[in-house]
Amino acid sequence: MRDRVKHLLLGPPLPTRRFIYEKLGKVRGLAAFSPDALSSIAYANQEIFLGLAVAGSVGLSYSTPVALAITILLSVVALSYFQTVHAYPSGGGSYAVARENLGASLGLVAAAALIIDYMLTAAVSLTAGVAAIASAFPELWPYRVEISLLFLSVITLLNLRGLREMGSSMAVPVYLFLIGYLSMLAYGLGLLIAHGPTSFTAAEPEATQPLTFFLLLHTFSTGCTALTGIEAISNGVPSFKPPEAENAGRTLIIMASLMGTLFLGSVGLTQALAVVPKPQETILSALTRRLLGSSPLYFAVQAITMLILAVAANTSFAGFPRLAAILAADGFMPRQLANLGDRLVYTNGISLLAMGSGALIIAFGGDTHALIPLFAIGAFLAYTLSQLGMVVHWRRERGRGWRLKAALNMAGALATGITLLVLSVTKFIEGAWITILLIPALTLGFQRIHSHYQAVSSQLRLSKPLPPSAKPPSRLSVVIPVAGVNRVTAYAIAYAKLISKDVTAVYVELEPGAGQRVLDEWRRWWPRIPLVVLQSPYRSVLEPFLRYLDEADRKRGGGQRVAVLLPEWVPAHWWQGFLHNQTARLIKEALLYRRRRHGYQRVIIDVPYHLRR
Amino acid sequence: MRDRVKHLLLGPPLPTRRFIYEKLGKVRGLAAFSPDALSSIAYANQEIFLGLAVAGSVGLSYSTPVALAITILLSVVALSYFQTVHAYPSGGGSYAVARENLGASLGLVAAAALIIDYMLTAAVSLTAGVAAIASAFPELWPYRVEISLLFLSVITLLNLRGLREMGSSMAVPVYLFLIGYLSMLAYGLGLLIAHGPTSFTAAEPEATQPLTFFLLLHTFSTGCTALTGIEAISNGVPSFKPPEAENAGRTLIIMASLMGTLFLGSVGLTQALAVVPKPQETILSALTRRLLGSSPLYFAVQAITMLILAVAANTSFAGFPRLAAILAADGFMPRQLANLGDRLVYTNGISLLAMGSGALIIAFGGDTHALIPLFAIGAFLAYTLSQLGMVVHWRRERGRGWRLKAALNMAGALATGITLLVLSVTKFIEGAWITILLIPALTLGFQRIHSHYQAVSSQLRLSKPLPPSAKPPSRLSVVIPVAGVNRVTAYAIAYAKLISKDVTAVYVELEPGAGQRVLDEWRRWWPRIPLVVLQSPYRSVLEPFLRYLDEADRKRGGGQRVAVLLPEWVPAHWWQGFLHNQTARLIKEALLYRRRRHGYQRVIIDVPYHLRR
Repeated sequence: MRDRVKHLLLGPPLPTRRFIYEKLGKVRGLAAFSPDALSSIAYANQEIFLGLAVAGSVGLSYSTPVALAITILLSVVALSYFQTVHAYPSGGGSYAVARENLGASLGLVAAAALIIDYMLTAAVSLTAGVAAIASAFPELWPYRVEISLLFLSVITLLNLRGLREMGSSMAVPVYLFLIGYLSMLAYGLGLLIAHGPTSFTAAEPEATQPLTFFLLLHTFSTGCTALTGIEAISNGVPSFKPPEAENAGRTLIIMASLMGTLFLGSVGLTQALAVVPKPQETILSALTRRLLGSSPLYFAVQAITMLILAVAANTSFAGFPRLAAILAADGFMPRQLANLGDRLVYTNGISLLAMGSGALIIAFGGDTHALIPLFAIGAFLAYTLSQLGMVVHWRRERGRGWRLKAALNMAGALATGITLLVLSVTKFIEGAWITILLIPALTLGFQRIHSHYQAVSSQLRLSKPLPPSAKPPSRLSVVIPVAGVNRVTAYAIAYAKLISKDVTAVYVELEPGAGQRVLDEWRRWWPRIPLVVLQSPYRSVLEPFLRYLDEADRKRGGGQRVAVLLPEWVPAHWWQGFLHNQTARLIKEALLYRRRRHGYQRVIIDVPYHLRR
Repeated sequence: MRDRVKHLLLGPPLPTRRFIYEKLGKVRGLAAFSPDALSSIAYANQEIFLGLAVAGSVGLSYSTPVALAITILLSVVALSYFQTVHAYPSGGGSYAVARENLGASLGLVAAAALIIDYMLTAAVSLTAGVAAIASAFPELWPYRVEISLLFLSVITLLNLRGLREMGSSMAVPVYLFLIGYLSMLAYGLGLLIAHGPTSFTAAEPEATQPLTFFLLLHTFSTGCTALTGIEAISNGVPSFKPPEAENAGRTLIIMASLMGTLFLGSVGLTQALAVVPKPQETILSALTRRLLGSSPLYFAVQAITMLILAVAANTSFAGFPRLAAILAADGFMPRQLANLGDRLVYTNGISLLAMGSGALIIAFGGDTHALIPLFAIGAFLAYTLSQLGMVVHWRRERGRGWRLKAALNMAGALATGITLLVLSVTKFIEGAWITILLIPALTLGFQRIHSHYQAVSSQLRLSKPLPPSAKPPSRLSVVIPVAGVNRVTAYAIAYAKLISKDVTAVYVELEPGAGQRVLDEWRRWWPRIPLVVLQSPYRSVLEPFLRYLDEADRKRGGGQRVAVLLPEWVPAHWWQGFLHNQTARLIKEALLYRRRRHGYQRVIIDVPYHLRR
């Protein structure tokens, strides 16, 4: 029944041999790895506008310069990663590069940063996508949390099914997005040239704060969320068609150029056209509305924006489970995260990501702006560690022109490192502290999990001669709790005699006198099997029986523990179970529960007796 | 932890020897058995008023005649039960009397009627009590469901604790109620005599229906709820001090006289004073307000009314679990209802009653008037059967003057039987149909449970020679699922060798090639124990293993089933469980789950291996 519902939702299980990697060309590679990076203009623009609008029109006049600074940073980071792609053609994720070059601990820090960032990427992309749609349909604005969770559920379900089937259909929204925005920006540029830049003015926001250097830094750092996702290609080099590194590198350059164009273009146009959004609208929606009016085209662009952001959230669903599986295989995360589910996807990782992102969406009320201060810290920490790792890599390799390569990666590390510092300081109170606390906490968790796995493996390793803990008692003692003299008891006793020569039965007397009656009958049937009758002044079967077992252990000495043989009769129909005191089940649960309280669990032999009607 | 919370709420467990019966005199006997009967004026008056008010002042002029008819019925029933008390000094509950004299089936019908009536008594009394309080504080009116459930929870908790401790404190509200209402009625009578009956008029309700004979019958039958609870004393004769029957009989007559006085007096005064209630007020509250004004005395009377109704609900909590325990002991209800809990009360019966009454309160919106049509059917059916049983009893005994006694009981049976018919017809559509359907359904359920218990007991009975089903296989085969070559496996194998000579290990290969590696290592450690490697194209450990077990059974033939020895390693700390694939637990659950699908369950030997860190 449960299986059937599962198959309906997720599809039938797939055999392991169907687990293959698909090779991508540049066109499909761009579609596969760029959505996260390209779509970040949807929230980065918004942050720049919100950051500067508090300083009024003077503040807003700085938007293009800030965007330019961020674009320069983008090109430095892109060049850095271009080198990584060529140096690690087998996939140069930040975790792998940092671990290999900077040691296990810093590798784990990078991993923790990435784990957190994946969750945030999904949450930020989904809420930003919903904001794009809610800008077009303001009546949806109060339901942003619910709509975000709905999209999250759909993406989760698709990923649990195994998204591979629809891989190439992902390319459609990416190219629609590129075509839509690029032509819109070109149209805006034409408009600007035709009318002259001074002809556009609007009721500009009033200044509530002076324009300080801190304000500019703060805006810069929130705008840096535009760079998130740029590392995606370096993780996935092996997915490209050969020559892998060549193709991946070129795709990276194309992607970075597109990112820069879209970002700088949209921020510049927003400033030049003096666009101001309505109360419940994103700045990007306001720009689109200014250029296209409230035409069907405007609604199409909003839909495409939502779509690419959903695809961007989906990249987390590809990256997070894969990273978690690598960490699990290395023994830093729970082993279950490395299990391939029925549909050949990392079911547990997908579920974990969905729960984490869902919790973030709920906790922050579905508001992208509230999530942004937590975001990007992880990404920039991972960038910095990865670039530093590359510097060490070049120094160690000392190949042709290594100094230049190392210098380039050093520049990247410095740029992202300084940005990271600025980010942490300017957004600390607004929420960055959460990420800053979480990263070391997660790192510590990874290490504790690792040492647990090592402790377990050392305790399980076999050696000759066998350690005493791996030796069972030399002889078996079996205790049977009985409910009276009947066929179930007879069956259990016969079974116990097959197993051991030391068999004792125990009867717990609940009503005064019942014990003697059972004892009299017992002696007629099994004169050679001892029956112990226990008193139970409080009418509990469990307590006296458990106390008896401890006593029996003590009597046998030497740490030997008696095994419990549980005669359990199985009714013909499940509902009949409700008509009986399920003492066998109670005893079983108590014996399992005891293992927590007393630190041990004893052998339980469950002997079913089947009723036919 | 769970135990500690339980002890805090319910008190520490009590030893069985503290299970004693207290003997009651007439004064405390009246307090113990009358609350249900006396308090019924709180809803019976209301029903008479609501029933006649639709026919305006003409209708209301019939209230005293209708009440008189009901009081006559009351005296007939009381006399009938007076005879029962003397004939069954050991306790003449309707179930016992009907069962003994009319046969098992009609006994069960009476039992079903009582079971339903107990639930309804608790629900009706509580909602009527809350209506009394909400009449005084109209702002509570919208929260009647919540307040009723609150009182229900308190009463349930007190009963789960074992109410005996506070037995005599129950007498206080009963006597307060008697003193309060009797003196109030006397005062009203005085007022009436002083001013003359014609001086009281009020804005009377307008007639919306003509006064028909059906309307009078309908009002009569709803007013008959005044009689509920009158049988209580006949159930509890042994609780009285000797001479038990004498004392119980006298108490019954006193109670019936008080009931009649209170009922007839209050209805008569209501009519004579032309009392009309406010929109959210009971008629009894309106009468009290007319006599006492909105004085503190009025509020005191409302509080006392609430209190006695709570005590009346509490009588269900004494009667229902006791009846359920008797039915369980006779094998007609689930055996668990006969278990004495920690506090020497029938915990399961109390919980069942609380759930049933709570469901009724919620389903009927806490509205007494909506519940009334379901009510009284059960009581009158039980009365009728009980009186008929008495007729048979006298006929069989043929003692001195048996004809007169039989005639008296026959008159009772006829009176209650006709009332039952009137009740069923006039209130059928309003809700009586629910009770009328439930009683045969419950009776059928009792019989099915009984035949199940008989089938079980015949299947468990021992006989010589032992039936083949009680004989285990002549030799044991043990299969061990293993996760690899390690100490847990070593321990499990050594344990299995103690039990059987036919030991096989099974390894399920999830990654291609892993099986061969394990096999190579295995041969070095345990060359004489066969290891079977199973392929699992869909990466499930369970499916191939379960299929292998079926295969192994078939190979051994003769219905023999191999036992599964489960090596289960127990982590040092519970949270470490989350870090591992709990395959042993999965297998255990699958083997238990299979018993439902395939109709059998095999022997499971659970062998724990303890980790130290």
